[in-house]
Amino acid sequence: MAIAAVDSNQIPYYEIPRELRQAIRSGEFTHYTVGQVPGWVHTNICILPKEYAYEFQTFCRRNPRPCPLLAMSEPGDPMLPELGEDIDIRTDVPQYRVFRDGEFSEDVTDISHLWQDDMVAFAMGCSLSFEEALMEAGLPLRHFDTREDVPIYLTNIDCEPAGRFTGKLVVSMRPFKPADAIRAIQVTTRFPGVHGAPVHIGRPDLIGIEDINQSWQCGEADVREDEIPVFWACGVTPQAVVEHARPPICITHRPAHMLVTDKRNAELAAL
Amino acid sequence: MAIAAVDSNQIPYYEIPRELRQAIRSGEFTHYTVGQVPGWVHTNICILPKEYAYEFQTFCRRNPRPCPLLAMSEPGDPMLPELGEDIDIRTDVPQYRVFRDGEFSEDVTDISHLWQDDMVAFAMGCSLSFEEALMEAGLPLRHFDTREDVPIYLTNIDCEPAGRFTGKLVVSMRPFKPADAIRAIQVTTRFPGVHGAPVHIGRPDLIGIEDINQSWQCGEADVREDEIPVFWACGVTPQAVVEHARPPICITHRPAHMLVTDKRNAELAAL
Repeated sequence: MAIAAVDSNQIPYYEIPRELRQAIRSGEFTHYTVGQVPGWVHTNICILPKEYAYEFQTFCRRNPRPCPLLAMSEPGDPMLPELGEDIDIRTDVPQYRVFRDGEFSEDVTDISHLWQDDMVAFAMGCSLSFEEALMEAGLPLRHFDTREDVPIYLTNIDCEPAGRFTGKLVVSMRPFKPADAIRAIQVTTRFPGVHGAPVHIGRPDLIGIEDINQSWQCGEADVREDEIPVFWACGVTPQAVVEHARPPICITHRPAHMLVTDKRNAELAAL
Repeated sequence: MAIAAVDSNQIPYYEIPRELRQAIRSGEFTHYTVGQVPGWVHTNICILPKEYAYEFQTFCRRNPRPCPLLAMSEPGDPMLPELGEDIDIRTDVPQYRVFRDGEFSEDVTDISHLWQDDMVAFAMGCSLSFEEALMEAGLPLRHFDTREDVPIYLTNIDCEPAGRFTGKLVVSMRPFKPADAIRAIQVTTRFPGVHGAPVHIGRPDLIGIEDINQSWQCGEADVREDEIPVFWACGVTPQAVVEHARPPICITHRPAHMLVTDKRNAELAAL
């Protein structure tokens, strides 16, 4: 097993997704997955009762930028064979966030006791994959330098509704020099399965963001004098929308504590 | 021969490049080629004595965004077989612009009397090709609506020098709503042979443009409240650079009076 200290907190470091999932399932590993198993796809997770799953699937199809659906389970079946060997969604995510009637209830490290035989698990692409592509292209990511979370904002852009699932688009923002912003658009265009190209660039006011320094959640903006803000659709969007739909139960990953899969980021490249 | 009135000036309209070139060669057609032979590649032209041609070829290789070289003739040979059937660069451009020692001398409709047996003709991709791709993608081009020329600017960005050829990059500007600007980057990225992706976006001041409403040449800017300016490398760059190099003679096309070729724009798509 490949383990190395990843930072001063002595978080073990894994290179092989299956080995990290085993450590998660056994309860050894409950940390965030950012920085783990580089090159492999981490996914956002949303688990809903079947009664809500059909509408949510439709919502994903209508809003592929914030909700790029990579895989979903059969109703009641906790396995996700499309994403890798022996992936059990009840145990293989380091921390889960439980919502009841749309309200945050608790964070847990295992949902075996909450699993219902009508539940459907959705796995969606996440920004870690396109950020890896940006870094490989030599593009600097500010929040990696500052070790802050990426700032996210609630926009005035309506998602395409699907039944009870309605709401505004949430975006993440990364600042770039203009020529790098163009390159970032090119690089992320290749990855539609993990949010793809930006949805907006340069003018926060046009999408309802009055003050770029006031992020809705997470980190500081820090857009420098020679930079422009670039906005990508964000995987927090489905969480916000699910809160609004108020299903009796909904389980997501805890932010940054993702499902790691046996798919390579490079496999998701469209061209 | 396919001829139709193209506007109220009764300029004949051609669909087949060979037929348009015949009309140009015979002296019947001396108008601009914009709007003619849709789907086919129009090119920028620069003709230099061989003594300057080697350095200019190097300049093109080092500056592919402003100078995307599509073809060059053999020294002294006026034919451009790479670009189509029976193309004679001495007669097949509707109007030429002659520079002597870097200074504008005259516009002519035929350069047979000026041709020297050491001359080399360079044909470079032009923005008409990527503008066609933008229009096919449903993206609105302001200067097409207003029937103005696209505004162009001299930037503070140095071209990569090659011998006597040095100078600043010239850019053209098209305004778009931010989401359309992202799409425009994607669409033009496919066409590196005709200037390709933009070189700059959103912040004119960062490339030495103090007032977007003061274009260096051509049309008005007209960037609206909900738009951002998008800048592409411009085929006027080599003309500006050649003026600086002051060769004893240099012949270009007169702006908008291009060489039309037997290559389709779609052939130039990189992906």
